[in-house]
Amino acid sequence: MAEKTPPSRSHGRLKIAPSLQPRDLMAETPQIAGAWEARIITLFPEAFPGTLGLSLTGKALQEGLWQLNTIDLRQFGEGRHRNVDDTPAGGGAGMVLRADVVDKAIRTARGGTPVDRRQWPVIYLSPRGKPFDQAMAQRWSAAQGMTLLCGRFEGVDERVLEEHQIEEVSLGDFVLTGGEIAAQALIDATVRLIPRVLGNHASVEEESFSGHLLEHPQYTRPSQWSGRDIPEVLLSGHHGKIAEWRREQAERLTKERRPDLWRAYCAARNVNPDEDQEL
Amino acid sequence: MAEKTPPSRSHGRLKIAPSLQPRDLMAETPQIAGAWEARIITLFPEAFPGTLGLSLTGKALQEGLWQLNTIDLRQFGEGRHRNVDDTPAGGGAGMVLRADVVDKAIRTARGGTPVDRRQWPVIYLSPRGKPFDQAMAQRWSAAQGMTLLCGRFEGVDERVLEEHQIEEVSLGDFVLTGGEIAAQALIDATVRLIPRVLGNHASVEEESFSGHLLEHPQYTRPSQWSGRDIPEVLLSGHHGKIAEWRREQAERLTKERRPDLWRAYCAARNVNPDEDQEL
Repeated sequence: MAEKTPPSRSHGRLKIAPSLQPRDLMAETPQIAGAWEARIITLFPEAFPGTLGLSLTGKALQEGLWQLNTIDLRQFGEGRHRNVDDTPAGGGAGMVLRADVVDKAIRTARGGTPVDRRQWPVIYLSPRGKPFDQAMAQRWSAAQGMTLLCGRFEGVDERVLEEHQIEEVSLGDFVLTGGEIAAQALIDATVRLIPRVLGNHASVEEESFSGHLLEHPQYTRPSQWSGRDIPEVLLSGHHGKIAEWRREQAERLTKERRPDLWRAYCAARNVNPDEDQEL
Repeated sequence: MAEKTPPSRSHGRLKIAPSLQPRDLMAETPQIAGAWEARIITLFPEAFPGTLGLSLTGKALQEGLWQLNTIDLRQFGEGRHRNVDDTPAGGGAGMVLRADVVDKAIRTARGGTPVDRRQWPVIYLSPRGKPFDQAMAQRWSAAQGMTLLCGRFEGVDERVLEEHQIEEVSLGDFVLTGGEIAAQALIDATVRLIPRVLGNHASVEEESFSGHLLEHPQYTRPSQWSGRDIPEVLLSGHHGKIAEWRREQAERLTKERRPDLWRAYCAARNVNPDEDQEL
């Protein structure tokens, strides 16, 4: 994070000796000052940027449209072996990340960030958290950045979550080996909403969840393939009919596959979900 | 995938020229024959194994407890530029993966796999799909392996999904740049359920979703930290009271944070979710 660090190094690891005062993480190069930033506390900094370094998110990272910094939890560990975890109080399988160790990492990650959590959310990735959704990604993409704590083992000592009022967010109702892949999913969904990241590659407006409907089926050339044709209306050139067909398909798919989204969609439009008619 | 390939190469890319017949992908070394296998069709094979190559999943990959192979979609592209996509029929933003190109990749990935989809699921990662959950991971971990198609752009031509009866699965109600991170999440959740992958590092039995309750808070040494104590009961040594306290905490958290899981838990136990009493 020294001055004149080229943008290509913006996704390096922050190696900060625990004996030092937290460095001013905002002392950045002009190229990336002010760009949205993800700070990731992890035992596996080598997992990043990973897939985030490829494709559109990777291009945007290189261009300085966003930045990524990892904070290696291991460096805050205790003793010669830099232990970060211990057995659960009350017994049980697995290991729990220590409050004092995580605390030091959180304090380091805090350097130079806004106090207002709406401007800089601090997230612990956990199956106990609030399920991640597109509305969160939209809120986070409008912040200045965020800190993500990746768990491992059986979890994190509850007291450090309380102490720092860390928000728990879940990727879904399944269990992962650690929080690193979940962090990448959260960052990917958030970063692509930052202006200029997607470029002309896709329309954020039209896609799933913006309108609370699943996306309609898509087709492209060849117009006939393996005995299957592209639906005629899509080749008609009649924009009104195409839009109507797509909305009908999106509604049908949502109704069939996601009754929960369908009910929310109908409620927002004051339509009866069973009758498909206005109330 | 030649004979005598050492296990460390089991997560290499399958480079198969489209003009060749699909190779027998099951012609494997004795070390990994029969091990659970993920085959990933992607435009970014370099995204793999990524985080899956680290920690417990990475160790298990090296030990041949599971295997990972990528199939580069680009090699099946059309023309000098190996185009894999084209504009959506009927207009609109973005690009759609071509049915004929994806078809070739699916056929290649199929080599040597069981016809029964319960033994070898074929999944397209899409926000339109069925939400991924722990029950799917459990089912998939009992299969011989699975094929995952990672989308990019606006989607995949619907006809190839129909032709191969590809199952659509969603990581959640949010939009990602591509399917690669979602594929890693699905594989991580699945692979950790394969016998011997987790070792003694964690108990699959006790964790979230196995019992449809969120996990209770965890604590570890030091017993006092930053003015906060570990709850006394956890230090009592009284196993019955500890188990009771943990169940109460898990129920409280589930009720507060996830009314949907709480209702399902109560229904399964024939308990009134509002009264917290048996019906």
